[in-house]
Amino acid sequence: MPGRTQRKFTDSLGKQPLADFKVGVDNAIFSVDTSQNRLLVLLVMRHQEPFLNYWGLPGTLVRQGESLEDAAYRILAEKIKVKNLYLEQLYTFGGPNRDPRESVDSFGVRYLSVSYFALVRFEEAELIADGVSGIAWYPVKDLPQLAFDHSDILAYGHRRLKNKLEYSPVAFEVLPELFTLSDLYQLYATVLGDNFADYSNFRARLLKLGFLSDTKVKVSRGAGRPATLYRFDAEAFAPFKDKPLVFI
Amino acid sequence: MPGRTQRKFTDSLGKQPLADFKVGVDNAIFSVDTSQNRLLVLLVMRHQEPFLNYWGLPGTLVRQGESLEDAAYRILAEKIKVKNLYLEQLYTFGGPNRDPRESVDSFGVRYLSVSYFALVRFEEAELIADGVSGIAWYPVKDLPQLAFDHSDILAYGHRRLKNKLEYSPVAFEVLPELFTLSDLYQLYATVLGDNFADYSNFRARLLKLGFLSDTKVKVSRGAGRPATLYRFDAEAFAPFKDKPLVFI
Repeated sequence: MPGRTQRKFTDSLGKQPLADFKVGVDNAIFSVDTSQNRLLVLLVMRHQEPFLNYWGLPGTLVRQGESLEDAAYRILAEKIKVKNLYLEQLYTFGGPNRDPRESVDSFGVRYLSVSYFALVRFEEAELIADGVSGIAWYPVKDLPQLAFDHSDILAYGHRRLKNKLEYSPVAFEVLPELFTLSDLYQLYATVLGDNFADYSNFRARLLKLGFLSDTKVKVSRGAGRPATLYRFDAEAFAPFKDKPLVFI
Repeated sequence: MPGRTQRKFTDSLGKQPLADFKVGVDNAIFSVDTSQNRLLVLLVMRHQEPFLNYWGLPGTLVRQGESLEDAAYRILAEKIKVKNLYLEQLYTFGGPNRDPRESVDSFGVRYLSVSYFALVRFEEAELIADGVSGIAWYPVKDLPQLAFDHSDILAYGHRRLKNKLEYSPVAFEVLPELFTLSDLYQLYATVLGDNFADYSNFRARLLKLGFLSDTKVKVSRGAGRPATLYRFDAEAFAPFKDKPLVFI
């Protein structure tokens, strides 16, 4: 556990007055284009200052009477249509000087960002262009310069996604209902990077865990032998839920 | 992955104005009294409204120019002296109506809480009484009614601690340098609840993982056979770091 020696707080801030804040939510929405093996993140082009014409994460400021989560769902609903979605809180970024609007010449209040993480099925998600701001899936490997500290938020979200793949069955939310073991392996390799594991170990381990059910249906792709299609068996997985299961 | 069907946001909030916030940090500081096998959390008694004379998590409001993390370290340094400490962000609670000071008759701004998680060594931690507010380690199993939504924050922190025990070597931060396998088992049972695992499986599994080194020293406690003292070998653990290692 990384330690930190306890500092003396001689209270260099004196009795500074309390900071005033506006609170934003920013969503790191990921999907995987399984046909091209690319991990994607949803970006929108800002059409106002600060960072006019920069790409950034879809976000909004929290309104009176609105919960953080509702604000996250609101901005998501404005940008993307999906049948089912899942959001979870990621991290809160709130240091001084993270937003130019903090300056006394501007609004003179701090801007804190509570970030949320989402993963959606690429084929199902329908982007909503609002006629003003641009919107696009960008490959995580090839991003433009982002507004604010959004590249930090995105990096944090990417780590969360990697962790989730390791201990949760999140991959099966992204794959089609029937998939080959090679599809599953490819998805892991796309998110975790090449050489994350040896294919035959990965295959043997997952089959042994017992929650991939063999549909007895085979599919031919390209020149190789026909491959078996599997289905994720949520019931067989249930006893492992919330356990730090080793997928890799 | 628990889904949520996408709601229609007919914008029932209309174009509500943005909410104004003060931002607090609240620390869920845990320790384990290994001599009595109790999981403890640090509480302070509030000496001001709201929730006057209630126990709550040590917290503070973020000042101008201060980062969230620095605010968390500041309040920690005011309450407890420890040689080394480790804090990580836990979760942000920011819904409307979580703080009575939000009322228009009071300060009329929302209060958001960024919570932090810490684990300290019980024997090393020295509580600081400031002469005004009370301070005490409380057993997590036997808590008083807490101020605000602090029991939610605490429950969230307890889950984080359980998860960390399952996949990280955090236990060795809490145990003395030399410990018996029974000490280690007892610590897990204290945090995770009885019957979390069978002792002999636990013992066999951990020895096989290879990062507990046998000091060849034996210790007698009570009537049983002398037990071997072990030391955690951080170097042997290094390759497993950040892997979802199954400790239990």
